[in-house]
Amino acid sequence: MAALPFIRREVLAIEGYTPGEQPRDRRYVKLNTNENPYPPSAAVLDAVRAAANAELRLYPDPSGRVLREKASARYGLPAPCILVGNGSDELLSVVLRACIDRGDSVAYATPTYSLYDTLVALQGGEAKRVPYPADFRLPVDALAQAAARVTFVCNPNAPSGTLTPLAELDQLARAVSGLLVIDEAYVDFTSTTALALVERHPNVLVLRTFSKSFSLCGLRIGLAFAEPALIAELAKVRDSYSVNQLGLVAAAAALDDYPSMQEHVARIQTTRKALSQGLIERGFSVLPSETNFVLARKPGVNLAGHQARLKEQGVLVRYFPVPELCDALRITVGTDQEIERFFAALDSAV
Amino acid sequence: MAALPFIRREVLAIEGYTPGEQPRDRRYVKLNTNENPYPPSAAVLDAVRAAANAELRLYPDPSGRVLREKASARYGLPAPCILVGNGSDELLSVVLRACIDRGDSVAYATPTYSLYDTLVALQGGEAKRVPYPADFRLPVDALAQAAARVTFVCNPNAPSGTLTPLAELDQLARAVSGLLVIDEAYVDFTSTTALALVERHPNVLVLRTFSKSFSLCGLRIGLAFAEPALIAELAKVRDSYSVNQLGLVAAAAALDDYPSMQEHVARIQTTRKALSQGLIERGFSVLPSETNFVLARKPGVNLAGHQARLKEQGVLVRYFPVPELCDALRITVGTDQEIERFFAALDSAV
Repeated sequence: MAALPFIRREVLAIEGYTPGEQPRDRRYVKLNTNENPYPPSAAVLDAVRAAANAELRLYPDPSGRVLREKASARYGLPAPCILVGNGSDELLSVVLRACIDRGDSVAYATPTYSLYDTLVALQGGEAKRVPYPADFRLPVDALAQAAARVTFVCNPNAPSGTLTPLAELDQLARAVSGLLVIDEAYVDFTSTTALALVERHPNVLVLRTFSKSFSLCGLRIGLAFAEPALIAELAKVRDSYSVNQLGLVAAAAALDDYPSMQEHVARIQTTRKALSQGLIERGFSVLPSETNFVLARKPGVNLAGHQARLKEQGVLVRYFPVPELCDALRITVGTDQEIERFFAALDSAV
Repeated sequence: MAALPFIRREVLAIEGYTPGEQPRDRRYVKLNTNENPYPPSAAVLDAVRAAANAELRLYPDPSGRVLREKASARYGLPAPCILVGNGSDELLSVVLRACIDRGDSVAYATPTYSLYDTLVALQGGEAKRVPYPADFRLPVDALAQAAARVTFVCNPNAPSGTLTPLAELDQLARAVSGLLVIDEAYVDFTSTTALALVERHPNVLVLRTFSKSFSLCGLRIGLAFAEPALIAELAKVRDSYSVNQLGLVAAAAALDDYPSMQEHVARIQTTRKALSQGLIERGFSVLPSETNFVLARKPGVNLAGHQARLKEQGVLVRYFPVPELCDALRITVGTDQEIERFFAALDSAV
């Protein structure tokens, strides 16, 4: 440590975020990082290939104007209400860098997306972690009482897969004076969105990503929706050129081919049902999932061994080595075939 | 302001970084943002098109292992000494977020890359700006006396185009106890690199980009070189998935086709000579440039009108509306034809 006296103490103190394993060996059935099992639409891949030309020598449009206009038409909010980011992960970081000084508080119900912990710690903020009850109903009152400068709600939530109804988010937005960030990474797998709250509340920011429903993890595109004055402040914090040109092209093409995404989502919803049912038949507790993954629990049983043995069988699922989740596995909804392979591995190995 | 009580005061206070204009109209001769006039190599574009496939549904490798190994072979430092970033702009931001708390000082000689000002202000740091003398020789003693937590040297410097010799950087690295960041965005256009200092000094970080010499502005890839312990701390601050998959592929292919980059650089160096000569013949003061741009001055004359009239003629150059640079234009070295059009516009319009 003494060798790096110029590093901030918060950085030295943390471990850093641990992403799910990204093996290069493509033989794994990869159900560990909530990727979409279906490829981006053919129209999206065509658009990306067409844009892989001499113009890559030029900087991208810093504002992502074309994408913002398409997103405006699709989501029904004016373009000045939209900020494009390098994945919604960048936008989460931008929000905290825009709002949080050392000691400022950030509230969220847990367990949830563990990157929030890392980002709050990096900023030197104080995380106010409010436990979810067993049914994962959002603890609105406790979050409001936390009176944090920023409150995160991942909705639907990861890793539980559960959904908070819009009315409760509306109530929370009214109850907090700080910023309410509604992280809708998985929203296309359910039927409720909080975008309408952006027009009702100047302190609501909604985040979206093209990684999950649009199958574009590799190109890093996220969107933030909020009132223009807030978007303008966040834009100061974001790098001007944080979004790559082929990501902008792919996301715009993906919005143009919306039915392709919807078809993949419908298939995932069908497979999700079979996955949940099969897990329940095998004695797991499974909450109703509104996402592209399922949280399977064996209350009181540490499932680290299950994960390891599934990996030996060529199937990757996510295990979180933290007390509140060590009796759970998070399993991404793959194709029907992948889920068959998952169950075969589970039945033979565990 | 009262409507956004959750935004940090530093963010509210700043204007944000103003990037150079990125017009969608491709008829402009675009000499304003130091892009390479030549396209990425055919091998790079082929590699990108080949990678525009179903695998974009997957997250990129967070560590960029393949690219780091190729960079290690090319630049002669072990892979653990290398961090891949979403452009060197992201890496600059990561360095300050890793090192600077409110009130900590960051030193650099000015004028230089103006993003440093923005990033320091966002972090709540104190910028210690040391003026360059007229010949742009690095004020080593004054920078050392600033005793900052982080010191930036853009080398070759933008917007002057001038180069600080390695011995002076070595002296500065020894003289400061904080971190010395050597921003080598333009280094391929000259013959000196500070990479050797990384092995000599645990407080030296060298930054590179694929935007300029490799013609890949659009794909956002930068590299940081430093000792592994420092790289590990910076990696905690960087988003795990900040670098997009097609950028990783393109940068790896670009290192494999190094001669293509060198050929483009050689052509730019030849054109740079003609550009500098033509400007001198027209009464401008021009410092010897070691980059892909030239700073042309008319001491005491505000050149805002020159820029505007060149734009009317379809030629974009960069004008900086700050006292120390308002008598200068920064002109990117384009193709020979583009420079002919620039001079024709200059002669007719100004």
